[in-house]
Amino acid sequence: MIEYIPGLEKVPAAESAVSFIDGEKGILKYRGILIEELAAHSTFEEVSFLLMTGRLPGEQELAEFSRRIGDARSLSSELRAIIKSLPKDASPMAALQTCIAAVGAVQPSASVYDEAARQASAIEFIGKFPAVVAAFHRHRTGKEFIEADPAQSHAADFLHMLTGENADPLKVRAMDICLILHADHTMNASTFATRVVASTECQAAAAFSAAVGSLAGPLHGGANEAVLHQLEAIGSKERVPEWFEQKLAKKEKIMGMGHRVYKTKDPRCNVLQKLARDLFEKFGSSPLYDIAAELERIAIDKLGPRGIYPNVDFYAGIVYARLGIASDLGTPIFAMSRIAGWASHWMEQMRHNRIFRPTQVYQGEHGVSYVPMSERKTPVRA
Amino acid sequence: MIEYIPGLEKVPAAESAVSFIDGEKGILKYRGILIEELAAHSTFEEVSFLLMTGRLPGEQELAEFSRRIGDARSLSSELRAIIKSLPKDASPMAALQTCIAAVGAVQPSASVYDEAARQASAIEFIGKFPAVVAAFHRHRTGKEFIEADPAQSHAADFLHMLTGENADPLKVRAMDICLILHADHTMNASTFATRVVASTECQAAAAFSAAVGSLAGPLHGGANEAVLHQLEAIGSKERVPEWFEQKLAKKEKIMGMGHRVYKTKDPRCNVLQKLARDLFEKFGSSPLYDIAAELERIAIDKLGPRGIYPNVDFYAGIVYARLGIASDLGTPIFAMSRIAGWASHWMEQMRHNRIFRPTQVYQGEHGVSYVPMSERKTPVRA
Repeated sequence: MIEYIPGLEKVPAAESAVSFIDGEKGILKYRGILIEELAAHSTFEEVSFLLMTGRLPGEQELAEFSRRIGDARSLSSELRAIIKSLPKDASPMAALQTCIAAVGAVQPSASVYDEAARQASAIEFIGKFPAVVAAFHRHRTGKEFIEADPAQSHAADFLHMLTGENADPLKVRAMDICLILHADHTMNASTFATRVVASTECQAAAAFSAAVGSLAGPLHGGANEAVLHQLEAIGSKERVPEWFEQKLAKKEKIMGMGHRVYKTKDPRCNVLQKLARDLFEKFGSSPLYDIAAELERIAIDKLGPRGIYPNVDFYAGIVYARLGIASDLGTPIFAMSRIAGWASHWMEQMRHNRIFRPTQVYQGEHGVSYVPMSERKTPVRA
Repeated sequence: MIEYIPGLEKVPAAESAVSFIDGEKGILKYRGILIEELAAHSTFEEVSFLLMTGRLPGEQELAEFSRRIGDARSLSSELRAIIKSLPKDASPMAALQTCIAAVGAVQPSASVYDEAARQASAIEFIGKFPAVVAAFHRHRTGKEFIEADPAQSHAADFLHMLTGENADPLKVRAMDICLILHADHTMNASTFATRVVASTECQAAAAFSAAVGSLAGPLHGGANEAVLHQLEAIGSKERVPEWFEQKLAKKEKIMGMGHRVYKTKDPRCNVLQKLARDLFEKFGSSPLYDIAAELERIAIDKLGPRGIYPNVDFYAGIVYARLGIASDLGTPIFAMSRIAGWASHWMEQMRHNRIFRPTQVYQGEHGVSYVPMSERKTPVRA
């Protein structure tokens, strides 16, 4: 009898070569390459290729791969109709989960048993995510959908489909870096959900839709939005010290600070912090940014040695805000990025699949009789 | 370091009191009550109440519970529009996963932290499943949707919404028994998927939609349809012995025979076998039924002692066929039933939730450099 461990904490659920974390040292690598190097030099398309295949692409390969993702950014008439059927006040994550499942209903499903077909599916969904996120946002704000442009970069085309405008190159690069930073993070909850669902050998849409559902949970995605609400609640840079002391005194959680696996500063946060600084220098500061910078300074000053550092969510929300993106699109953007990781883990899972079918510890009763209604006292049992 | 076990086989993933299996003895119980007793005396609505609450309902409770499920069988205009947007050749499981996710986009989401709200969500989805399955089938066959009648039983109203006709009471009872038999089965793959996704504390729709995706995989749901195709492929009762010998000689899997957990006859199969006999006696036999009965006779005759017995899927497909239900609706009907179990496990999970976040065994490289494109040889690494 194997011991029951709630949440399967520290239980290995897969052998994987996609990404690696050393939480003590603050290291995150994709396929062995440090996240800082990728954020400095790579693009989301290249990182997607790297995560899926295990190596960096050649020039022609990358061009072909990017074009295929670009082609996949267009939406069929069925998907457009479904998006338009959704209420404008729907949760963007529920809309995304619906539409990703619908891809499986609308398009002929590719084989999950063939590596080339799996790669084609992965490319298909990497393209569909930003198209759906942008189209639902256009729908809910009463605007026409904007066609995808396969010749643009993924980051640029997403911002164009979302806003209808060509974004400043620094903003496009900021979007690209955010997509790179969130693309994989070893065996997180939604990646595990992807593997669990996919292990029944269902089509890719079914597994990726499930992953979106998992990411929608407040214990997983959504922290970037919570950080924004927290910064808004603080209200001004001057109020930070008092607010911080009160939080500490009440032992309340500070959103965007600390991380389950990182005992030092999340390496993604360093990148985002610099990115936020560049953005706010060029496009003008904002009270939110000033509050965040002050909160980080005070937190590290007072708690740094005890290991309370900002995590990736701390600056992601204010970067998105500076790009003019609605605060509730932070988690859908997380999904747009993480689909590259989900797809890579799915491909890895399917190469050596075994259905996830654990067991339970039974704690119920035995030998209960079916009592006919006429003899039943309610409640029959307490 | 905990050992890595592919598929987490025999690893306990939850403490549960919902159902119990003894595979050696061929026993399945819901909340301690034998499945045979429930199939003989209960209804799907009562079984749903039992699974969720742990006890049998009183008369008024059951009436109220059944009425609430009946009310939940109606579809909003948004859901109708989404169903009509789907291609007629879509997989019914992909359509169901889409629509269940869409419930989360269309309706305000109930709290997952409150037991009464969770019970309301469970009732909501138990009602929505047959409504969606029936409406999508009407859509794909070019027929108008049929309104739900909350006063009818779940089984009767499903058949009415599907066909537009009031079914014979024996057929309604057969449908009801099929729903009872499939309602829970301890920690199967889709129930585990429900718990994994729900553990991020996402809304119920997100978790149940994921469960549908998991059930759609050929390693999980879908066997009842495969049995039908197998019986059709055999072609006639007379061909069974030769077909059986060939399968044995080639060591090929016989669909609907044997089960991972049952070493003797699946207790649900006994019930279904009798049900099939009653149905075919009353409504006339069919070649499929004759082939199935002959196949079972020969298999038990030749292999019984080695433990190859029919499982629940063996007769489910031909029962559905006798009810006039399209063969690709067997798995959606499985989902319509299993939502009672998924909901019960979800409620149990949320009472003592811990996010599922296992770990991985890293098998990749370290210290890989980001090579600039100009210096890259393709492939950079083999």
